[in-house]
Amino acid sequence: MTTFFDRHQALLQDARKALADRGFWAPFAETPSETIYGAGSRAAGQAAFDALKGRPFALPGHPETGRAGAEVSPFGGALDITYPTADPAALIAAAQGAAKALAEATPQARIGALIEALLRLNARSFLIGHATQHTTGQAFAMAFQAGGPHAQDRALEAVALAWEEMTRFPAQAVWEKPQGKAVALRLEKHWTLVPLGVALTIGCNTFPTWNSYPGIFASLATGNPVIVKPHPRAILPLALTVQVLRAVFAEAGLPADAILLAADTAEAPVTQALATDPAVRIIDYTGGTEFGGWLRANARQARLFTEEAGVNTVTILGAPDFVEMCDNLAFSLALYSGQMCTAPQTILVPAGGIDSDLGHRTPDEVGRGLADALDRLLDDPARAAGVLGAVANPATAARMEALRQGARVIRDGRPMLLAAEGDDPVAQRECFGPVAFLLPCADAETALERATALAREQGAITAALYDTDEARIARAIPAFARAGVNLSINLTGAIYVNQSAAFSDFHVTGANPAGNACLTDPAFVVPRFTRAMWRRQIA
Amino acid sequence: MTTFFDRHQALLQDARKALADRGFWAPFAETPSETIYGAGSRAAGQAAFDALKGRPFALPGHPETGRAGAEVSPFGGALDITYPTADPAALIAAAQGAAKALAEATPQARIGALIEALLRLNARSFLIGHATQHTTGQAFAMAFQAGGPHAQDRALEAVALAWEEMTRFPAQAVWEKPQGKAVALRLEKHWTLVPLGVALTIGCNTFPTWNSYPGIFASLATGNPVIVKPHPRAILPLALTVQVLRAVFAEAGLPADAILLAADTAEAPVTQALATDPAVRIIDYTGGTEFGGWLRANARQARLFTEEAGVNTVTILGAPDFVEMCDNLAFSLALYSGQMCTAPQTILVPAGGIDSDLGHRTPDEVGRGLADALDRLLDDPARAAGVLGAVANPATAARMEALRQGARVIRDGRPMLLAAEGDDPVAQRECFGPVAFLLPCADAETALERATALAREQGAITAALYDTDEARIARAIPAFARAGVNLSINLTGAIYVNQSAAFSDFHVTGANPAGNACLTDPAFVVPRFTRAMWRRQIA
Repeated sequence: MTTFFDRHQALLQDARKALADRGFWAPFAETPSETIYGAGSRAAGQAAFDALKGRPFALPGHPETGRAGAEVSPFGGALDITYPTADPAALIAAAQGAAKALAEATPQARIGALIEALLRLNARSFLIGHATQHTTGQAFAMAFQAGGPHAQDRALEAVALAWEEMTRFPAQAVWEKPQGKAVALRLEKHWTLVPLGVALTIGCNTFPTWNSYPGIFASLATGNPVIVKPHPRAILPLALTVQVLRAVFAEAGLPADAILLAADTAEAPVTQALATDPAVRIIDYTGGTEFGGWLRANARQARLFTEEAGVNTVTILGAPDFVEMCDNLAFSLALYSGQMCTAPQTILVPAGGIDSDLGHRTPDEVGRGLADALDRLLDDPARAAGVLGAVANPATAARMEALRQGARVIRDGRPMLLAAEGDDPVAQRECFGPVAFLLPCADAETALERATALAREQGAITAALYDTDEARIARAIPAFARAGVNLSINLTGAIYVNQSAAFSDFHVTGANPAGNACLTDPAFVVPRFTRAMWRRQIA
Repeated sequence: MTTFFDRHQALLQDARKALADRGFWAPFAETPSETIYGAGSRAAGQAAFDALKGRPFALPGHPETGRAGAEVSPFGGALDITYPTADPAALIAAAQGAAKALAEATPQARIGALIEALLRLNARSFLIGHATQHTTGQAFAMAFQAGGPHAQDRALEAVALAWEEMTRFPAQAVWEKPQGKAVALRLEKHWTLVPLGVALTIGCNTFPTWNSYPGIFASLATGNPVIVKPHPRAILPLALTVQVLRAVFAEAGLPADAILLAADTAEAPVTQALATDPAVRIIDYTGGTEFGGWLRANARQARLFTEEAGVNTVTILGAPDFVEMCDNLAFSLALYSGQMCTAPQTILVPAGGIDSDLGHRTPDEVGRGLADALDRLLDDPARAAGVLGAVANPATAARMEALRQGARVIRDGRPMLLAAEGDDPVAQRECFGPVAFLLPCADAETALERATALAREQGAITAALYDTDEARIARAIPAFARAGVNLSINLTGAIYVNQSAAFSDFHVTGANPAGNACLTDPAFVVPRFTRAMWRRQIA
């Protein structure tokens, strides 16, 4: 019988090569095209999504003592889908019940099944696109990409690195110690991979699959059962994922309960009970810094991998092409209404203005340039809808309204661009959603110091720099590196600071408060398992 | 100019190969022989040790506002050596002052200097042997081996793995995304290695160098300044290490303050202040579980790598060679008076007895066999002194005296063998020092369950199993693996359960309470640094 592992060998080998090369490689096609995804796939995805609405979601064999689910599309309309619920203790028990069989399966069996599941998830990308759109508020094209193929790329990246790490040392060796003229001492040694224990993945509202897949797939690949705790507003994309994984595991002879869904509601959350259960040894968390701090203080039995919040900056010290710069930044600010963890928030400009290809530009002129570019980008309502999507959480809109009061508004609407000043605290804390601040600084060096200090102190996942002074750029590079933030320099055209590509970009460094983990470096994978040896003399 | 890195390339390449092969490889000769270490090296080591006694220890340029040091040899006599002391804040400031230059040095510069330092430390192995003997209580031959070459092996292992990890991904790549018929998008990407921050190594009394070197060398290799906080009873071996590292760093153009000594006294400890300083991002700790728990609760800003305590078991279900088994275990129990983290403590035997080559043996007969073997081993006073060494901490002797009261003593003296019963709690908690318990269990399965449960619940670094039933051995192997403990089966002759060889044995799994880190697996190294990128379009 051809196993899943045999069948997917070539893809795994390509993934390993891509990991090592760090160039462009995207195994899952990002275009929502029927040429790629098959004739009728678009309509089938829509139909499958419609068929899920208003019904109980099927997870055969899953622990279930009740049902929950109150998702409402940010574009309007309740999904009316309910998911099985169970006590945290019942979920933990089910995961523990699956642990031994998952651990004792070969890495080949786990990796093969996970790649098979990714291919099946990829085939469902239209459905996942709709599920992502109507839980996150992303416009469909983005929801398809980010919720489907891009998330699948990130998952395969984690799977391939897990394979590397599980196989980098031999499973057995002979240790032969010379004893001068006497017979050498000889031991046979054998190593067993030992998973750490039950893993918990805590998903977020805005990127339920993209941010959760690396942890889910890395934990499963290394033999740890995973309980997926989705954000109560964005359950469906992860429920579909759990459904596919359970089906493939069952086919592969692996325990279906190695992957479980912990659906809950904002009124009766289960996250804290799960996170502090002694059996939970791994937590992957995407979300705010406040709950991240709670986990650090209270879930000390677990290894914690986080992506939290930060203040992403754009430092504009010069513009080789002013209009192109403004257009590029406008798209980064507008995309998904600034709800990406990589979206810029605080734009630092020297008070004395900048040099550009169009001559000198004051901070006000920079602000106007950005506002004009936003207007150009969002002038056409259809295009605006495709770029902006919808705001996922009603609280975001309320926060924006509060910010507008008393502020100097450079551009109103979505996204909103506000003028900030000096040490204005609002521009120097994370302010999630479609708002950006233009903050004049005393001079270029002060702007760079402010940008790197914000990364060090508040955290940052991305930083952008525009400058015409190559010597200053060369000095800025190590300063941003020391602040642990990935830097994009003078981007124009169709490459944006928000973009992070699997197999090439390490997403989040772990070196500042924006998160302690990186998608996907070895430190994200190797703490999920260890090795136990047995050794014995060779006669 | 030939750099240290160029000069030590061949050794680094051999180390990398050994890491991958996991067979026997010991770059630093373990025999205290003048044939190897040079004519006169023995006397020179003794003389150098004598010359250090009764004087202030020289660490030129080291922060110093006072002096401390109250080491007393467990073999008698105060060392009367004082070491520079400084406020924790001053040490942190000095480490931070060195951080940038250490981080910005190339991996080659750091790795080259660290290997050079190891070769210089190796040349001082006789001196380090004396320093280790008179702080830990190890007999000289063991102190030479464990404090010198074996510790140096473990350090080189960490250095070689750090090199692997720092160089496994390219420092730059071109990312080229096809755009159909349009021009491809092209980015150049560059990655900078970013060390995590100041590292603190908290040493122990019994193996000051062996247990501390992996963390010290892994942190320095990956660019993190290290503050070494030795146990107040065992400062000298680490002070010598810091001295050598500072000298080599200065020669290599690296900051000497990248390695600092935090000497303190039991009366005025500095560990807590250092461990909770926000600048400290890495802690390597060897010591008891109680302080390990304190660090987990209070030093949450740091990544914590621990080796703590546990209950190492011997499960005797059958003896292929009863006398050889007893001789082997006697040595393991007696070596350094049971003060090794790998020493067996609790010996589990089925109440109905065992089969052996000498016929059936009851638990009492097993106890007598072990006692007889201990007597044989320790009959000759000179040999006994060489095996047993001295007890490092006076509290250990007091605890043994308390244990003896009311216990059934199978063998008195050092080590002491006590009969335990049923759920006797004393046999099921770590009891550091020269004491072991013989604990009859209902049957073989119960003994295995007890041994694996002790590892899971109390922690264990080693487990030994003796059995004649191959089917039962095959069942036991995965059970011990699930308990996260390294298992030695039917050892006889000159291979002991206590032994853990660099480049082959992964020491501590991290999968049970005996510690969360492993010497040296990738999870011990990779969380000490991360990568920050800069990227820019290619015209």
